[in-house]
Amino acid sequence: MESFFNVKKPDEVFSIIDGFEPVGKETVSLEDALGLVLSADITAPEDLPAFFRSVMDGYAIMARDSFGANESLPAFFEVTGEVLMGEAPSVVLERGQAINISTGGMLPKGADSVVMVEYCHLLDDATLEISRAVSPLENVIQPGDDFKEGSVVFKKGHILRPQDLGLTAGLGIPEIPVYKRPKIAIISTGDEVVPVNRRTRPGQVRDINRYTLDAFCRQAGAKPLFIGLCPDEFKPLKEMVTRALEQADMVLISGGSSVGTRDLTIKVINELPEFQLLVHGISISPGKPTIIGRSGKKPVIGLPGHATSALVVAEIFLSRLIRRLSGCNYLQKRIHPLIKARLGQNIESAGGREDYIRVRLLPKGKSIIAEPVFGKSGLISTLVEADGLVKIDMNTEGLYKDDLVEVMAFSSRYGDMYYLNEKAVQT
Amino acid sequence: MESFFNVKKPDEVFSIIDGFEPVGKETVSLEDALGLVLSADITAPEDLPAFFRSVMDGYAIMARDSFGANESLPAFFEVTGEVLMGEAPSVVLERGQAINISTGGMLPKGADSVVMVEYCHLLDDATLEISRAVSPLENVIQPGDDFKEGSVVFKKGHILRPQDLGLTAGLGIPEIPVYKRPKIAIISTGDEVVPVNRRTRPGQVRDINRYTLDAFCRQAGAKPLFIGLCPDEFKPLKEMVTRALEQADMVLISGGSSVGTRDLTIKVINELPEFQLLVHGISISPGKPTIIGRSGKKPVIGLPGHATSALVVAEIFLSRLIRRLSGCNYLQKRIHPLIKARLGQNIESAGGREDYIRVRLLPKGKSIIAEPVFGKSGLISTLVEADGLVKIDMNTEGLYKDDLVEVMAFSSRYGDMYYLNEKAVQT
Repeated sequence: MESFFNVKKPDEVFSIIDGFEPVGKETVSLEDALGLVLSADITAPEDLPAFFRSVMDGYAIMARDSFGANESLPAFFEVTGEVLMGEAPSVVLERGQAINISTGGMLPKGADSVVMVEYCHLLDDATLEISRAVSPLENVIQPGDDFKEGSVVFKKGHILRPQDLGLTAGLGIPEIPVYKRPKIAIISTGDEVVPVNRRTRPGQVRDINRYTLDAFCRQAGAKPLFIGLCPDEFKPLKEMVTRALEQADMVLISGGSSVGTRDLTIKVINELPEFQLLVHGISISPGKPTIIGRSGKKPVIGLPGHATSALVVAEIFLSRLIRRLSGCNYLQKRIHPLIKARLGQNIESAGGREDYIRVRLLPKGKSIIAEPVFGKSGLISTLVEADGLVKIDMNTEGLYKDDLVEVMAFSSRYGDMYYLNEKAVQT
Repeated sequence: MESFFNVKKPDEVFSIIDGFEPVGKETVSLEDALGLVLSADITAPEDLPAFFRSVMDGYAIMARDSFGANESLPAFFEVTGEVLMGEAPSVVLERGQAINISTGGMLPKGADSVVMVEYCHLLDDATLEISRAVSPLENVIQPGDDFKEGSVVFKKGHILRPQDLGLTAGLGIPEIPVYKRPKIAIISTGDEVVPVNRRTRPGQVRDINRYTLDAFCRQAGAKPLFIGLCPDEFKPLKEMVTRALEQADMVLISGGSSVGTRDLTIKVINELPEFQLLVHGISISPGKPTIIGRSGKKPVIGLPGHATSALVVAEIFLSRLIRRLSGCNYLQKRIHPLIKARLGQNIESAGGREDYIRVRLLPKGKSIIAEPVFGKSGLISTLVEADGLVKIDMNTEGLYKDDLVEVMAFSSRYGDMYYLNEKAVQT
């Protein structure tokens, strides 16, 4: 059994992760860009809007013709036409005239403001009475009010949201430069591991990590690619890892839980081209037997075999690595929605490592209780029953019941919303 | 111009939304199930784990043979073999014997505990000295420790996370019953609206809502389906809406901003089969001119034309409707990550409606400032510059600078993480 000679602290591991580069750039259509990271600034190629637009239904006028108008002393206008949507009005407005306009319509030449329909009263087809004065530019947006031609709309590194894609479309930009979504190869290993659809014999277990990691990668915005399930043998594993490196931007080897598997992983990856072993063990629990290396520019990760340990390592370190490869430049350590809660009971912790305790969140009056889910780390039920993780710092011997803690909530599309709202009225 | 005779309060609209049913059920493979909602309970078809498993590397023994052992008085054992990963050990352990076992290995008959390798010292090939006593079942997980055969693992309505899919795989269940992802048809209307790749003439604007709504639906877990861009004419719009209803579970008609478009939408949808108009105007700003109806079981929504109004309505109401159609049974009103912040300046609000103010989040020492983004609602830049929304209740005349507010943060895969952590140290 190889020892973990090179056990690193979590902060050291974060620095190593931040040394990886985004996997590459590409140009995608707006429909494919949600959640991706801009790889270049976006500049407005023209003014938005491009013309004077009404933001109300009403009548376009010259504001000064309305000055002094009120309910007891209305102003009168000659109605000379209507602005058609999508067309530049051909008429030019003269003093004392008004032109009917809808929200979004283009102001005719001569007009500088719009009176809302609520203050307008048609006396006959051609005569309009208005009961309120407007000031120049009232109810009107001007060319460039949203963005002026040449201005920077989004900076490189921005993460694209629905409204951002809408604006980009509004500017007439149908394709957008982004960092590529990283492709992540997943390999399961272990002589005792069998596929999900196989009957297990005594001593065998099904491949849990394949599915946990596949979903984790998707959730983090990467493309998972399952390469295969490999016995604990050098040659087939080496072949599989080599193939994975060719096809993907990063390789995840999810070990069986035995020492044999872990030693084998190290032996195999040490033979990869331009390989450098960066981390061999991290001072956290669960998750200590984690391996991080690089083959050229591509990360090669050996995860602990226990499903629980593998997912905790994924939550803490892999999520950050995936964001790094995705071009995200927000490199803070914590990447989870944090929920403040009171600890439900005392927890002891060994010194010299960070402990990640699985907790269930329970509402209690206006606050939330974080109730530890105890159980041996080999049990995946501890993760399934948990809503998030509580970190116990390296130099802390434990936490007490009722201590205020920050729970790193597991994210899931709806899950976030649920936990953060129904249960999680902040204390 | 049709008036909004039927303006409803937001709470009334939520009740109407909750009256819609999930769009249907299907069975999907584990790779396709992330974020979907279970449509039936999942029961464990067998014990997990299925056998006594070691959770440590070490030696399997009978615990009572170790009682009293310590560093100064070690216990001695005869080593009779090794457990191979993935196989049921053929040997039976007798008193005084020890068998080498790895993490995840199956305990041989006769053994009831595992001594960690750290407390074991091999004196020769067949003689083991241990320096610490273990109790029965120490370092061992028993059959059913995760889940017992027949127990309910997940209840109907559960939203599937990575660890949940892993556990399901562990139980040998390759496919899983879920509610279908709703398919949402999107139609853009307005004589002034042109596609993104078209040069605009004066008076024309590009189709922003198509992209905003497409991305919004994806983010909320639905499948968007763009039907087309339609001029403000009865016959083509009716044909398009009819086609949309055939192909999708819900229809979104995003109006141009003019009155003409809004009136037309009402006329068209009133002729749909089994049509019922449920909401014609909501007392919120922005977003008042929203239409909600149903054609049979399918929602038909008319959104305001302004991109900003349309997206605010989507954030507040559409997200809840999509969750409802997705089978989610968490029907709370608020569906956003909430961030506590101090308001950056006074905001006035008209009575009789809920106001949704766009705000930017700025860190300030240990707290966060929510700085209002002002601008006419026709400007999409107000949404692009914002990080979330602050609601001003119907019966409030406004909020004061430094008031503590809850910001409904816009969600985006990375965005959540970013806002909730780097900026958002809770006050």
